[in-house]
Amino acid sequence: MVRVVAPFYLKPGMLDQFMETAAPLITETRKEAGCITYELAQSANDPQVLVMLEAWETQGALDTHVKSAHFTAIVPKLKALCTDNGAETALYTKLL
Amino acid sequence: MVRVVAPFYLKPGMLDQFMETAAPLITETRKEAGCITYELAQSANDPQVLVMLEAWETQGALDTHVKSAHFTAIVPKLKALCTDNGAETALYTKLL
Repeated sequence: MVRVVAPFYLKPGMLDQFMETAAPLITETRKEAGCITYELAQSANDPQVLVMLEAWETQGALDTHVKSAHFTAIVPKLKALCTDNGAETALYTKLL
Repeated sequence: MVRVVAPFYLKPGMLDQFMETAAPLITETRKEAGCITYELAQSANDPQVLVMLEAWETQGALDTHVKSAHFTAIVPKLKALCTDNGAETALYTKLL
């Protein structure tokens, strides 16, 4: 299983717009083959910090996801709502 | 739903011991009321970087978890296998 932790640091006041923009991405991604979990969550310490928490059955399923029409159309719009602080997506494989 | 992303930066050569020590913590935690997900994963970029990825039904369930006998006995042993670089546990609440 492949796990993704993808942070988003919002520009001020962009939470509602981010959620509205992300909603169809989440809906469509959850329909994809190999998608186990795809959730948007908010930091308990800083409401401007969001994270997409993902679980995929295989790396191939994740590779297909990042080429999908909904990903390529929506993710740039989400990034435009974020600060330019170089938040990095972290990729993990399940051990236990 | 409450989400936890808890990083662990291992001292060199400690992966096997970490997994052996963590195994009973994971087994017991998954039996707890309100535990949805409790997984240990390894960074795809750096095998010395691990993360516990957790989902809990409520903050109360998480509060109970960190007071449990298995948590209080085992987590200090896990931390002793890690570098002292101040890795911080991140707490999130699910938005979507």
